[in-house]
Amino acid sequence: MHRFYLEEPISGIGIVVVFPKDEVAHATRVLRLRKGDEVQLIDGINLYKAELQIVNEQEVTAIVRELCPSPEPPAQAVLIQGLPKADKLEMIAQKATELGMWELWPVEMERSVAKADKPDRAQKKQERISRIALEAAKQSSRAHIPQVAQTVNFAKMLNALQKASPAFDAVFIAWEEEHALPMSQAVQRCIDEGKTLHRVAVVIGPEGGISQREWEKLRDIGAISVTLGRRILRTETAGLCALAVLWTALGEM
Amino acid sequence: MHRFYLEEPISGIGIVVVFPKDEVAHATRVLRLRKGDEVQLIDGINLYKAELQIVNEQEVTAIVRELCPSPEPPAQAVLIQGLPKADKLEMIAQKATELGMWELWPVEMERSVAKADKPDRAQKKQERISRIALEAAKQSSRAHIPQVAQTVNFAKMLNALQKASPAFDAVFIAWEEEHALPMSQAVQRCIDEGKTLHRVAVVIGPEGGISQREWEKLRDIGAISVTLGRRILRTETAGLCALAVLWTALGEM
Repeated sequence: MHRFYLEEPISGIGIVVVFPKDEVAHATRVLRLRKGDEVQLIDGINLYKAELQIVNEQEVTAIVRELCPSPEPPAQAVLIQGLPKADKLEMIAQKATELGMWELWPVEMERSVAKADKPDRAQKKQERISRIALEAAKQSSRAHIPQVAQTVNFAKMLNALQKASPAFDAVFIAWEEEHALPMSQAVQRCIDEGKTLHRVAVVIGPEGGISQREWEKLRDIGAISVTLGRRILRTETAGLCALAVLWTALGEM
Repeated sequence: MHRFYLEEPISGIGIVVVFPKDEVAHATRVLRLRKGDEVQLIDGINLYKAELQIVNEQEVTAIVRELCPSPEPPAQAVLIQGLPKADKLEMIAQKATELGMWELWPVEMERSVAKADKPDRAQKKQERISRIALEAAKQSSRAHIPQVAQTVNFAKMLNALQKASPAFDAVFIAWEEEHALPMSQAVQRCIDEGKTLHRVAVVIGPEGGISQREWEKLRDIGAISVTLGRRILRTETAGLCALAVLWTALGEM
């Protein structure tokens, strides 16, 4: 079923909603949908079934028929991704969105070969990656559209991590250089300690990994080192893997 | 540490091994390694530490110093992948190798848009994908080099699955169209029933998914339907996710 993204939250079943302009073009010119067709609507919070009413090139409206079961995973997972080379961030945004990521925070780390762009290019990049996340959210039937933050340096990220509101219930670091706990066991330990994991962060280093200094700073604010198995994962694979492990540990997969 | 692939199994610690020709060129011309440098050797079964002895453009030898802890996951996982579009199979081979896949069986399924190539092109494709798996195995520090099978049709795959020796201890199907068990719970159920999962298969449909008819045939030979969460995963993401879930369920991640 085709999915459309609305800019305003849907207030209830039975109401009529108006499609935003770019979705009108997509529904009519690309998909050639008609009055009576069933579609899914995403309002950034929930997923609904709806039936098209008015369909023409100026306007598309739909009547909201029912709330769909939430396709969202059991926690908000923020992926803090060491800035990777080339266009890997696009692939990470797409696949991590499919795998239930809540927000993406790209970070220029000590061993990042790629550097953060100058302000004007940085904003364009952020917009491009955000669009990729939006498209992936639609395709994978997410109700939440993951936010993509602008790339910052490590110190700014650390500050944002500490001051985040709502606060993070746990921060995990994929860290290959010590005998860390398997990630699922670290998650289980948090649960055993009575924590409810509403909002967690996973820190993934760039190609060269997280530096010792960065690791120490993360550890100092209470981050937990975890392993994702005995093989060396590429930076663009590690975050995807961590999300799958997280949802498995929380019983969804 | 740089890793090299040997064609013959290493018979023990302290022996001297000779590098195959293409590894000689890589070690000398590309990496400019020297006598005394430490390297890792992969013989397709184990991973070893070794020290270079003779290093010149004609010959490279190394003395095997120690056996490294096995980087292999706790079971052999065969990824049975519905033939995807374009070059997605390359990406799947690379990332699934990092994530511990044992073998890759590409299968032309009912809903595959891509079709299996004619014999001569099929062999070339198999060789190309095998090389990608080999490179990924080296990069991710695998000891086992995943085999890539030639693309076959569904009937042939089903036959191979049934007649496999050693036999499969479990076959899982990622199947979105029914209320399937989360994959980790299905794995746990197998363990609770007293099965040891030495060798398992995971079946992933192509872009359009597995057809009802294919699902029934798999079910008839005892395959277990599982879910990988409530979001719709692309075909190239589903297999990677299934591997991460499998290793989590088996305690490695």
